[in-house]
Amino acid sequence: MSYPFMQSGKFLTMEGTEGVGKSTNLAFVRAWLEARGIELIVTREPGGTPLAEEIRNLLLAKRTEPVDETAELLLVFAARAQHLAQVIKPALARGAWVLSDRFTDATYAYQGGGRGLSLAIIEQLENLVQQQLRPDLTLVLDIDVQKGLERASQRAELDRFESESLAFFERVRAAYHSRAAMAPERYTLIDAGQSLERVQQDIAARLEQLIQA
Amino acid sequence: MSYPFMQSGKFLTMEGTEGVGKSTNLAFVRAWLEARGIELIVTREPGGTPLAEEIRNLLLAKRTEPVDETAELLLVFAARAQHLAQVIKPALARGAWVLSDRFTDATYAYQGGGRGLSLAIIEQLENLVQQQLRPDLTLVLDIDVQKGLERASQRAELDRFESESLAFFERVRAAYHSRAAMAPERYTLIDAGQSLERVQQDIAARLEQLIQA
Repeated sequence: MSYPFMQSGKFLTMEGTEGVGKSTNLAFVRAWLEARGIELIVTREPGGTPLAEEIRNLLLAKRTEPVDETAELLLVFAARAQHLAQVIKPALARGAWVLSDRFTDATYAYQGGGRGLSLAIIEQLENLVQQQLRPDLTLVLDIDVQKGLERASQRAELDRFESESLAFFERVRAAYHSRAAMAPERYTLIDAGQSLERVQQDIAARLEQLIQA
Repeated sequence: MSYPFMQSGKFLTMEGTEGVGKSTNLAFVRAWLEARGIELIVTREPGGTPLAEEIRNLLLAKRTEPVDETAELLLVFAARAQHLAQVIKPALARGAWVLSDRFTDATYAYQGGGRGLSLAIIEQLENLVQQQLRPDLTLVLDIDVQKGLERASQRAELDRFESESLAFFERVRAAYHSRAAMAPERYTLIDAGQSLERVQQDIAARLEQLIQA
């Protein structure tokens, strides 16, 4: 696949609902790829640059002012545009791989599935901000929502998204399933309810395929 | 003109390049309308709500990180969506008038004219965020760019926009002229190089027409 900005590295993203084990498995993917001599940039959304991290803080802060859903969506894509311009595209262009903790699938899942925003509008913004760029591989860590929230609740105070209802996260999870089903060549759904060893065997098997492709 | 959210107040905006005298003339419009018993909300963009003011701060801050132009555009419209939802639409709906110091014409002028971003993309975002809502009247204060910048430079430290080049502001001014020429019934171009008394006579004449309409 070739892109107008001449991507030569691969673009990987990791997705999933709260408490699914993204941090641990991001570190696993990083170690696995680096052990094979691949230059890898690990980054996250929303965020990844100083300005984009400031936008992240606006998004996650709990506030008394109700946040308009379109405003939230535009903030997410503003951070993404900055992240792409400053980090992701330059890295891919010089041949590095990029692994992002969340990307546009999270927008489809949280703002689309969770909040019920129009998928057509999300797609319009995706095309505006990314043009043809899409991840080469998206690992969707999948877990029973209740079990994930129990894990997440053992961490620090919940942010504005983590404070949503169980029903919200059920819709987010369903949206991830739906995205994955539409393009099985791009998505790999990983059963994150298994032992960590089994989860990482599944991830490693998919990465093995990718580097041989 | 009727809007889906049942606007009954009128929506006024004031536009212009740096140092054109917006603050003084916003106060004049406010006093003129309030003297006629009109309930008026005076607000500004980017900003107008706590979250939108936080976005304003992100936009105006000088930073070493280059700001991607699409990210800037999306931040502007994110702040606008929040401003519309929290301030402008509720005020209009209950019959108050709203006077905003800048609105979407500034996006066409600064991001479109100044930075050269696609007008079609700006229009797409305008439709997404505003649906059919447009100002009933836009007062464009117009002044020789050099003269305006001299006035502005006597104020505090310049922000990220005020630090742009003369050529940038010439493009911004030309974009305002072009917007005004396309819809003369909605825009009134005011020669802000005149004496303040003459400027305010011109503004008052236009407001008189509006309240009799």
